[in-house]
Amino acid sequence: MFSQRTQGLRPSPIRAILSVIDRPGMVSFAGGLPASDMLPEWSGTVSPEVLQYGPTEGEADLREAVSDNLRSLGLDAPPERVMILSGSQQGIDLTAKLFVDPGTPVAVEYPTYLAALQVLRFYGAGFVELGSPAAERAGVAYIVPTFANPTGACATDATRDRLAEDCLRTGTVLFEDDPYRDLVYEPCDRTPIAARMGGGSWIYQGSFSKTFAPGLRLGYLAASEDLFRHLVVVKQATDLHSSRLSQRIVHEAITAPGWTSRLENLAGFYRSRRDTFEAALQRHLHGLASWETPQGGLFYWLRLDQPIDTRTLLGEAIERNVAFMPGEEFSPGEPDLGTMRLNFSHAGPEEADRGLATLAELLRRPS
Amino acid sequence: MFSQRTQGLRPSPIRAILSVIDRPGMVSFAGGLPASDMLPEWSGTVSPEVLQYGPTEGEADLREAVSDNLRSLGLDAPPERVMILSGSQQGIDLTAKLFVDPGTPVAVEYPTYLAALQVLRFYGAGFVELGSPAAERAGVAYIVPTFANPTGACATDATRDRLAEDCLRTGTVLFEDDPYRDLVYEPCDRTPIAARMGGGSWIYQGSFSKTFAPGLRLGYLAASEDLFRHLVVVKQATDLHSSRLSQRIVHEAITAPGWTSRLENLAGFYRSRRDTFEAALQRHLHGLASWETPQGGLFYWLRLDQPIDTRTLLGEAIERNVAFMPGEEFSPGEPDLGTMRLNFSHAGPEEADRGLATLAELLRRPS
Repeated sequence: MFSQRTQGLRPSPIRAILSVIDRPGMVSFAGGLPASDMLPEWSGTVSPEVLQYGPTEGEADLREAVSDNLRSLGLDAPPERVMILSGSQQGIDLTAKLFVDPGTPVAVEYPTYLAALQVLRFYGAGFVELGSPAAERAGVAYIVPTFANPTGACATDATRDRLAEDCLRTGTVLFEDDPYRDLVYEPCDRTPIAARMGGGSWIYQGSFSKTFAPGLRLGYLAASEDLFRHLVVVKQATDLHSSRLSQRIVHEAITAPGWTSRLENLAGFYRSRRDTFEAALQRHLHGLASWETPQGGLFYWLRLDQPIDTRTLLGEAIERNVAFMPGEEFSPGEPDLGTMRLNFSHAGPEEADRGLATLAELLRRPS
Repeated sequence: MFSQRTQGLRPSPIRAILSVIDRPGMVSFAGGLPASDMLPEWSGTVSPEVLQYGPTEGEADLREAVSDNLRSLGLDAPPERVMILSGSQQGIDLTAKLFVDPGTPVAVEYPTYLAALQVLRFYGAGFVELGSPAAERAGVAYIVPTFANPTGACATDATRDRLAEDCLRTGTVLFEDDPYRDLVYEPCDRTPIAARMGGGSWIYQGSFSKTFAPGLRLGYLAASEDLFRHLVVVKQATDLHSSRLSQRIVHEAITAPGWTSRLENLAGFYRSRRDTFEAALQRHLHGLASWETPQGGLFYWLRLDQPIDTRTLLGEAIERNVAFMPGEEFSPGEPDLGTMRLNFSHAGPEEADRGLATLAELLRRPS
């Protein structure tokens, strides 16, 4: 199941020793820790211990808060199997490191998140389409079931059940990436696939970038018992641990009384952006492209009536001050021509209108 | 020169587009950025923009401050070839990713930093001893020339010259790891090897963990022109970028008027810890072990008169509340028996005395 490179991987003896040096009375000559007296004076409201080295798995209180949330979603995710990540991009890197050798088949949705494709490809993954016969022999299945990137689609309960069953039957590791689940605008099935993976191998990850602040670079994962400790060793070798200050700030935020209403406000704000965007799309792109209205997340996925390569369109659009993501970039195999991913959360209403009008103008020109 | 896995690596089109979306008047549908209006309210003194996604290379002002420092050391390191890291452990991971395939020979000091060995081994490195004939065919040379971990040794100018010449002559990439350079207690040669690598391929990295605070997880690297952009792409695929808040805090600290005197205080404090430790070593371990007094850094390297496997000693020591690092763990090849690494910066004077007395007692027992 694991990649060749993990064969010789052992936990660092330093970290094994660090686990006992907090014992009262212990004299430690083991680590390379700065003297506590020489840490900078800290004028903030957080504990000065956040300046010292910390545990690879993350801060205990943040792991507990994440665990509470994940358990409420039905996941078998006690605090000791929650790890804090330096952003969920890191979770993709760690998972790829652990499972992907050159030629390892990885099942993905067609299309899917391009930075996941980039990392998996980097470690040598060969992509197979999720649900296809070839996916039966995949080592890992990477899935964004809730408000997928780039399509915005949300998998039904029946689909989620089937994906879990497939992974369990074929012994495939489920890697579920769920950064958008709280950006929800209409009721829809959102129970994680990983909650249906009893007895199987799974990794589930989420992010604080969409609900709190991307600049702090924090995400988290939970994993089944057979995988968790390996992920910790791989994380340790990658960056020791994530910023303790970021962890402290995020812990304060997500356990504050206002957190639930923040999530509701956030969803309300983005729902209204989506509705405005939908109206502008109807105004400008009706008859030029088709799309589904996303029930959550951050993206519209457009299929142009004329299957042009939108990568060539991008340069002209940028000249006219409009940027978008060519859909071709999200394809694990042959580029899917005539597709575009449009983010609706960042641009304000007037900007969105102007940008979509410009795109429509470019698409209407005689080719 | 590069690893197989980098062959298919391309910069993410998203980040290429992000580089133009700051243009005035640009409407961006490209990224997945949260709306600025929906970032959390920020009560700190730093700019709210640190909460948004940022550049992979790091914050411009921090890169500039690091560049100023590196140039003062003689490095060819303009700001555009400085990258901020999520701790210098990350620099090892990125460099290994970029250069090491299964079987790639990597030249290292014997002994050397165990977490570097761990990561390089993970990517499949075969170790060869720096300066040996086998090192001629090494793809990369990993060197900690200034107050090495674990030995505390500082390479002379003549050795540094020779190491640079060797790398230039054999076309080996120099990877210089320099986290301890500011913890200096006696005058000694410290000009980076990378400053002698004109025309060659080099990566130089440093850390804010020893001079400021490890818990923020920040380090930096500079690299020769042929390598830098590849390192950026690899970092991007690993964690997008490092915490912007940590970067802001470190930038404020290292550009504040008090920074130079902080470094002097730090060195003074650790010098005095080292002197106390030296006296306790003389008191307790004279006749049991030999050592050199380190001119900087954080470690004593002891060679026991009896070459016992100190890994077996460790369990007994921990039972008596003393922890140390068995020297065997730092060996790239056959374990070097009867060696220990003792950190002198963390334990206070009384603790150090008690701990060394306990170690001496264990060593004196009839075997």
